[in-house]
Amino acid sequence: MLAERQEKVSSLVCVGLDPLEEKIPECIIGGSPWSRVAFHMNKIVDATADYACMYKPQKAHYEAIPDGQSALQSIINHIHNKYPDIPVFLDCKRGDIDRTQRQYRIAHFEIDGVDGMDFNPYMGKDCMEQLVDKEHLGRAIVGLCYTSNPSARQTQDVKLADGRFYWEFMAETILRWAEELGVVENAGLVMAAAYEVKKGSGEIFSWHLSRCREIVGDKLWLLIPGIGTQGGFVKETVKASFVGFGSIVISSSSAIIFASSGLNFAEAARRETIKLRDLINQYR
Amino acid sequence: MLAERQEKVSSLVCVGLDPLEEKIPECIIGGSPWSRVAFHMNKIVDATADYACMYKPQKAHYEAIPDGQSALQSIINHIHNKYPDIPVFLDCKRGDIDRTQRQYRIAHFEIDGVDGMDFNPYMGKDCMEQLVDKEHLGRAIVGLCYTSNPSARQTQDVKLADGRFYWEFMAETILRWAEELGVVENAGLVMAAAYEVKKGSGEIFSWHLSRCREIVGDKLWLLIPGIGTQGGFVKETVKASFVGFGSIVISSSSAIIFASSGLNFAEAARRETIKLRDLINQYR
Repeated sequence: MLAERQEKVSSLVCVGLDPLEEKIPECIIGGSPWSRVAFHMNKIVDATADYACMYKPQKAHYEAIPDGQSALQSIINHIHNKYPDIPVFLDCKRGDIDRTQRQYRIAHFEIDGVDGMDFNPYMGKDCMEQLVDKEHLGRAIVGLCYTSNPSARQTQDVKLADGRFYWEFMAETILRWAEELGVVENAGLVMAAAYEVKKGSGEIFSWHLSRCREIVGDKLWLLIPGIGTQGGFVKETVKASFVGFGSIVISSSSAIIFASSGLNFAEAARRETIKLRDLINQYR
Repeated sequence: MLAERQEKVSSLVCVGLDPLEEKIPECIIGGSPWSRVAFHMNKIVDATADYACMYKPQKAHYEAIPDGQSALQSIINHIHNKYPDIPVFLDCKRGDIDRTQRQYRIAHFEIDGVDGMDFNPYMGKDCMEQLVDKEHLGRAIVGLCYTSNPSARQTQDVKLADGRFYWEFMAETILRWAEELGVVENAGLVMAAAYEVKKGSGEIFSWHLSRCREIVGDKLWLLIPGIGTQGGFVKETVKASFVGFGSIVISSSSAIIFASSGLNFAEAARRETIKLRDLINQYR
């Protein structure tokens, strides 16, 4: 579904739908906070649907609004009904013991009705295994590996006895789980975009992406956050990770959805999405 | 709040409120699934309140029921209103980048209104730091360390270059974060109960608990799952981890809340809670 969609619209851009009540454009008035959030996001979806390969609502942003689940449901339904060939991926990073992780599978795949979700692998294979539904093998299941927040380096770059970093072990382990569970085709890893190690140094770090490709080859797709307001570098990211349609998804949220708080918010979101799509396509 | 409560009722037992729609006692009829779940859990609370030091609803179990948030809210309000000195701890294991983790803080501490929550530390210090609210320092913030599911051994027992296991590094790291953030008094770790390494061998493993106490001393409290249906061993658990009121909380869920599916479900839950409390107190 993802590769097809990417090829159809020639875009690797995923629009992150992470609304904030305080950033709803001023022109959206009336109704409850959750209904304004739903209206805001649905307008963004309509404005960007021609250029997005995926939509990625982030769960916490809906949980932090009273009745936010209604907003999330409205947005997911809107995308499914109006743009049935665009996958909806829930960014929620769940990870728990077997019977609990099974409840998350029900919550997100059955109740929310999304096409994919990410998981936190710290608690082991349960976190991936329990999300697999033998009857619906097309759903994407993506494990955190190398995340884009600077403080993650403290816990993911720990050196192991065999000389590797802990995140390298995670990449290999998640691939093995996917193989054992028969879900390689739809499994992926969260891998941060290329970034400047020291701000202003001009020295761009993308080794983690090329190293990840060495470990997992082209078997897993990479969900790449950290572009946009987080300051990732598009050229180096694409060069180190792209190996064909369906191999990477580059996600941007705030830079698109909050591109303008004025009456032109939807048009501004569309413009930013096109800009990012074109920039990525230059280096593909 | 926790130490006071433990001393007052002489109990280290936390009742895990992890409802399942299919296990609602047959005598609870009418209304929607969420309202039956809320009724079931509120009756369990009333039956066990004299013997519980804490209640711990697990979020996924509410997310897997349509409108489950209404059930969760009803239960939290019920406990706060009727038993204001019993802390409510949300088991949700969230972990994300800074601005997203902040949304989870709002969702759980402000909207759900719980007194504590756990976090997944894989993404680094952000996961703990963003839960700290300088104005409400009394809230418990507990990091996953050594979890009770067997598959966690694959990812938490990885050997580091310095000879330690990854979970030992996590214990030390979470303590350091708590010190840096000034929240040691309310910080804790999730540490599995003592268990039989090979089922039926009679050989009980509790080294992880005593090793954890070596690493963090009595500075952090331990939230201990894995007793009850998960087969943990009470005596060895208490001996290896208890260092005074407020130092450990032993959690049991299914064994208490599903003790009976008959008319006597509340009475059975009370009996199981008393049984576990007394067993723990024998070894304290």
